[in-house]
Amino acid sequence: MSIRLGILGYGNLGRGVEAAVRQNEDMELVAVFTRRDPSQLKIRTETAKAVSVKEASDWKDKIDVMVICGGSATDLPKQTPEYAKLFNVIDSFDTHAHIPEHYADVDAAAKESGKVALISCGWDPGMFSLNRLYATCILPEGRNYTFWGKGISQGHSDAVRRIPGVRDARQYTIPVESSLEKVRNGENPDLTARQMHTRECYVVLEDGADPKKVEEAIRTMPDYFSDYDTTVHFISEEELKRDHSGMPHGGFVLRSGVTGLEKEHKHLIEYKLQLDSNPEFTGSILVACARAAFRLNKEGQSGCRTLFDIPPAYLSPLTGEQLRKSIL
Amino acid sequence: MSIRLGILGYGNLGRGVEAAVRQNEDMELVAVFTRRDPSQLKIRTETAKAVSVKEASDWKDKIDVMVICGGSATDLPKQTPEYAKLFNVIDSFDTHAHIPEHYADVDAAAKESGKVALISCGWDPGMFSLNRLYATCILPEGRNYTFWGKGISQGHSDAVRRIPGVRDARQYTIPVESSLEKVRNGENPDLTARQMHTRECYVVLEDGADPKKVEEAIRTMPDYFSDYDTTVHFISEEELKRDHSGMPHGGFVLRSGVTGLEKEHKHLIEYKLQLDSNPEFTGSILVACARAAFRLNKEGQSGCRTLFDIPPAYLSPLTGEQLRKSIL
Repeated sequence: MSIRLGILGYGNLGRGVEAAVRQNEDMELVAVFTRRDPSQLKIRTETAKAVSVKEASDWKDKIDVMVICGGSATDLPKQTPEYAKLFNVIDSFDTHAHIPEHYADVDAAAKESGKVALISCGWDPGMFSLNRLYATCILPEGRNYTFWGKGISQGHSDAVRRIPGVRDARQYTIPVESSLEKVRNGENPDLTARQMHTRECYVVLEDGADPKKVEEAIRTMPDYFSDYDTTVHFISEEELKRDHSGMPHGGFVLRSGVTGLEKEHKHLIEYKLQLDSNPEFTGSILVACARAAFRLNKEGQSGCRTLFDIPPAYLSPLTGEQLRKSIL
Repeated sequence: MSIRLGILGYGNLGRGVEAAVRQNEDMELVAVFTRRDPSQLKIRTETAKAVSVKEASDWKDKIDVMVICGGSATDLPKQTPEYAKLFNVIDSFDTHAHIPEHYADVDAAAKESGKVALISCGWDPGMFSLNRLYATCILPEGRNYTFWGKGISQGHSDAVRRIPGVRDARQYTIPVESSLEKVRNGENPDLTARQMHTRECYVVLEDGADPKKVEEAIRTMPDYFSDYDTTVHFISEEELKRDHSGMPHGGFVLRSGVTGLEKEHKHLIEYKLQLDSNPEFTGSILVACARAAFRLNKEGQSGCRTLFDIPPAYLSPLTGEQLRKSIL
C-alpha cells in the first residue's frame, strides 16, 4: 500500500513535490490543499483532488503525511504547528535563526496529537546541515565553510523588485572562486561576506526610470547588497524571460581539518550541489523525508524531528538488507 | 564522565584511533589490546595500558566501546563477532561483497550479549555509503559513480610486493579526470574499470632483478592491474621512503539525476574527500561511531548496526538543541 501524501500550497515548491511523488513508487498524491478557490486550481496529477484548506480536517484519515509548501517568513510558523495537530507533517522551514522557536512550537503540537513533524528538510537547512554535522563529528578540529550558488536567490530578487522604478528582477548569488580555492588548499581563511559571495542582478526598468538611481539603490541596500560586490545589468523584459526564468541553485559545504598527534595531517571534506531546479530538488528531499516521518509514526513516535534525528535508511524505500547489499 | 575506549590492534589504524581520541573531550583511551607481548608495545597515551588480548575479558566492565582495528580479510570476520560478546564494538570492515555475512555473524553475537556493534565505519564503506544513500533517496532517477584516489591502495601495493624481484612498492589509484568531467556534465556515461581509474606503481627492485619482467608481471596481473592502464616507475629505496611513505587517499561520490514532470531538470550531487592520512581519517570516523554505539546501548539497544541506522546527531558530542542552533 502506498504512502498517501497531501500537499499544502501549490506554488513552485508544491509543484516540485508533485513531480517528485511520481518518481517514488511507494508514494501517492491524494490531495492538494489551497487557500484559493480549489475549483480554479489546475493540478497535474489526475488522481489527486484540489481541496480548500478549510476542509483539511476532513482528510485526517485519508492522508498519511502532509507536505507543507508555504514560505518560511509568515506561512510555516503558523501552518506547521497547526497541521501537526491533524497530520504527520514535513516542511522546509529555512530561517536558520528561528529554527529553535519553530521546533518548540511544532514539537508541542505534534506531541499532543501523537504525530511526527519533520522540519527544515531542504538542502540548506537540510542536506547541507547533514554534511556540516557529519564533517564536524569526524574532524572535530577544523572549520566549516558554506558557499551558495551560482543560483537565484528569491529573497534578494524580491528585494530588488521592491525598489521604485524596477518592473522585474532576478538576483544570482555567486561564490568567489578564489576563496573556495583557499579553503580547498587548507588555508582556513577568515572570510568576510564580500570575500565569499558576489551578487549579480538582472533588472527590467519601468518606463522612464533612472538606471543610475536604481543601481545606487541596489548597491547600497543594507544587509542585502551593501556588504557585497554587486553587478547590475539592465535588460528587457523579453531577455529576462528568455535567459533568467529558470530556478537554478546549488553551493558547497566544506570542512577543512587536521588529525594526528602533532595535528600534522590535513583533510578536506567537500559536498557540492548543482541544481537545475531548486524547488524540484527541495521537493524531492521533502518526499524522501515524508517516507521517514510515516515510518517513525508507525513505530509509535511523535513530536518534532530534523534530519539530524533520522536514521538515513528511513529515507529509502529499500530494506536494510537491500541497502547493505547494494549501497553500503 | 568520559566514554572509555579500548583499541584492539595497534597498527596504522589503531594509532589513528589513538590520535583521534585526543581530539574528542568526551572520550578516553583506557587500554590497547595486542596479540604481541604487551610489555614490548610502546603506546603514546600515557594513561592507557597495553594489555594482551588474552586478558580482554577482564576489561568487560572497564571499557564502554572496543574499537577493533584489524584487517578485513582475516581479522575482523573473527574478531568483531568474538568481541561483540563482551563489549560494544566498532569496526571498519570494508570487503563490500561480504558485508551481509559479516553483519549476520556480528548481529547474532551482539544480540546475545545485549551489546551494540557498528560495522563498516570507514569512509568506503562509511561516509561514501551515506552519500550514495542520501543522494539515491533524493534523486531516485539517476546514477551513482564512485571514484577513488588519488591515493595509496594497500591491497594493490601488497600485490606488487609479492612479485619476485620486488623489494618494496607503493601503488596509487588515480581517478580519470575526463570521466569525472563527463559525470559532472550529466552525461551519465557507461564507464569501464579502465575509464574510471589509472594505476601508478613505484617499485624498488631487488639487486639483479629484471625491470622488464617485473613491469610485465604487474601490468598483466588479473583483477589488480590487467583491466587498467598502469604506469610503473622504478626508484631507489631512499626515494620510496622520501616521496612515498605517506598514506594519502580520497575520492568522489557523485550522483547525477533528473526531476520534473518531463524529467527536464538535471541535478548533480558530489561528495569529495581529500585525505593526508587514510588511517587517521578512518580512525576519526571510528571514534565518532563509538560515541553513537555507546549511546544506543545506553538506551537499551543491541545488535549489529551500520551508519545507515544511526541518527546523525548520535555521532556528535553536542545536544540536539545545540545542533539545531549551531549547525542546522
